[in-house]
Amino acid sequence: MFKVLKTEGRARRGEFNTVHGTIQTPVFMNVGTAAAIKGGLDAFDLRQIGCQVELSNTYHLHLRPGDEVVRDMGGLHKFMNWDKPILTDSGGFQVFSLAKLRKITEEGVNFASHIDGHKIFMGPEESMQIQSNLASTIAMAFDECVENPATWEYAKQSSERTVRWLKRCKDEMARLNSLDSTINKNQMLFGINQGSTYDDLRIENMKAIREFDLDGYAIGGLAVGEETEVMYHILDEVVPFAPVDKPRYLMGVGTPNNIIEAVYRGVDFFDCVMPSRNARHGHLFTSKGIVNIWNAKYERDDSPLDENCNCHTCRNFSKSYLRHLLKANEMLGMRLLVIHNLSFYNNLMQDIRGALDEGRFDAFRKEKTEIYGKRI
Amino acid sequence: MFKVLKTEGRARRGEFNTVHGTIQTPVFMNVGTAAAIKGGLDAFDLRQIGCQVELSNTYHLHLRPGDEVVRDMGGLHKFMNWDKPILTDSGGFQVFSLAKLRKITEEGVNFASHIDGHKIFMGPEESMQIQSNLASTIAMAFDECVENPATWEYAKQSSERTVRWLKRCKDEMARLNSLDSTINKNQMLFGINQGSTYDDLRIENMKAIREFDLDGYAIGGLAVGEETEVMYHILDEVVPFAPVDKPRYLMGVGTPNNIIEAVYRGVDFFDCVMPSRNARHGHLFTSKGIVNIWNAKYERDDSPLDENCNCHTCRNFSKSYLRHLLKANEMLGMRLLVIHNLSFYNNLMQDIRGALDEGRFDAFRKEKTEIYGKRI
Repeated sequence: MFKVLKTEGRARRGEFNTVHGTIQTPVFMNVGTAAAIKGGLDAFDLRQIGCQVELSNTYHLHLRPGDEVVRDMGGLHKFMNWDKPILTDSGGFQVFSLAKLRKITEEGVNFASHIDGHKIFMGPEESMQIQSNLASTIAMAFDECVENPATWEYAKQSSERTVRWLKRCKDEMARLNSLDSTINKNQMLFGINQGSTYDDLRIENMKAIREFDLDGYAIGGLAVGEETEVMYHILDEVVPFAPVDKPRYLMGVGTPNNIIEAVYRGVDFFDCVMPSRNARHGHLFTSKGIVNIWNAKYERDDSPLDENCNCHTCRNFSKSYLRHLLKANEMLGMRLLVIHNLSFYNNLMQDIRGALDEGRFDAFRKEKTEIYGKRI
Repeated sequence: MFKVLKTEGRARRGEFNTVHGTIQTPVFMNVGTAAAIKGGLDAFDLRQIGCQVELSNTYHLHLRPGDEVVRDMGGLHKFMNWDKPILTDSGGFQVFSLAKLRKITEEGVNFASHIDGHKIFMGPEESMQIQSNLASTIAMAFDECVENPATWEYAKQSSERTVRWLKRCKDEMARLNSLDSTINKNQMLFGINQGSTYDDLRIENMKAIREFDLDGYAIGGLAVGEETEVMYHILDEVVPFAPVDKPRYLMGVGTPNNIIEAVYRGVDFFDCVMPSRNARHGHLFTSKGIVNIWNAKYERDDSPLDENCNCHTCRNFSKSYLRHLLKANEMLGMRLLVIHNLSFYNNLMQDIRGALDEGRFDAFRKEKTEIYGKRI
């Protein structure tokens, strides 16, 4: 299902075929936590900004409106009126970052909803059942995302349990995909590499999970407290042990520079809330670097955010207007800025693919690093 | 500039020509307080929902971003990228409803900004200067909007001052329109009828202001505390004294039923925050009556809000999805619901115009009153 079209060093230009269409990689997935993009964007806006894959959060949708509601409405695609690929995360990350009173056992995790405190149990089977109800294109395996720093002992114990959970995920997904009542009987499953910041655990874990012959492999538990250089080092160490014929997904990463560096290290899929979150705070990515739209110098600036951007916001509105909207706390400001930042990310990925197609990714990487610097 | 195409009783089907295009009346103006529609709609969304006239608030724009900023950006049309007519209110209503520590003299009003408390003076000249900077199509005269109930004595004194202010507004507007630096040298001016709920004061005031030969006449100070029947009675009494060859604008009104009843009484222009405000609270207007989208019965309802509505929201999303978005506090929910309610109002006006064109407004009025009842 995954075809590597071209390589440059470890960087790959690929195509991933799904029942909801082909994904051109490297790709940035646009995060729509509760089946809607923060900032008031709907599925038609996603088409406009060049989104290939929408990412929704299992934990949030399980709590609200409930995955059984989504199933009864025909699945996420029909619910939100989006016909291209959707990836759902496993709920694991949110259970470990949002939920209260959590207790981990071999079976799974007991926790309390962050909305109303009601008690919930989620293990590998439950995560697969919820994601099957959501009927996403790609489901993620249920894992424990260990915060950094963690002890070697804890990271080892946790990543070994995650491997045992992966077996249960795969079995449950196979069972669900065989049921007549299942909406998407071709739902794919990606495993998740864990092992904190320890090379040996990471590699051992990757060797173990690649045996499951899954549809793709994610690298999880990074960008959760460690230094960027540590993240790059882990990629350098672990990517060579990932299957070459399966897509690789670096979860929750990152800045434009992070993405370029991870592509350089062989990663194909990305997601991050940064572009939409930064947009809502007035921090915009442009072809010339970061624009902080709150800056007083933009009060009477009638030029677009980015002369080189073709998005709705840049084609139609000035920095002066955008700054006013944000200052006046108008929803429209957040919407237009999110449209821009997500367009920037989607365009960046298109440019990365273009550079790989033309065998000039290395030059592209150097040029962009000069513009954005190492910190963004 | 205003042409009555057809009448049915007192109801009129008209056309109003402006430098920014022709307005088909009766018309509902869509409120974009700070040069943006609440709920995250921009000028392109306004085109989609059939908006003919956008209404912005002078008081808000004077405070933020400042009318001189808007002027330096080329005026409101360019600022928000909307090329059709814009009406700006005078700031008077907000000075009397939002501002603090206000003190009225013959000169004007001293008050403190509701945002940061800084002291501001606004009189007829200042209001015209601000609106000239905003460069709207239609400016409103600076008036005192007296809350109901008011004493006859206070209402008389206030409405007489409003007439004296109107003279100053007209003179200042003529001066501003003659300046080379003015963006819209064809800015129109509407006067505002006041006089609280007293027939004699209302009529006396209308007789006085019609002498100014303005571009249009508004009826202000209604829907501010009095019973609906009192408002209809005032319209019955005062409209016969308004010029027949000028448009009439009932400010801040109202429900679909209010609008139909006011058209019946000879009104041509309307504006109200109700459709967008109600949308944000989950109260939707439909061809079959009100839908409260919070109602649990819509949890699994995959039908659109209104089968008879052609808006983006009704063509593409289910009640189940909309309810979920509102419950999850997603901006997208508010946006989609505002799109629907404003479309409903714009479509209602189109239907009213169609009924007038075909000489069946009376039947239309009876039919709609049965659906909506007298209260909406």
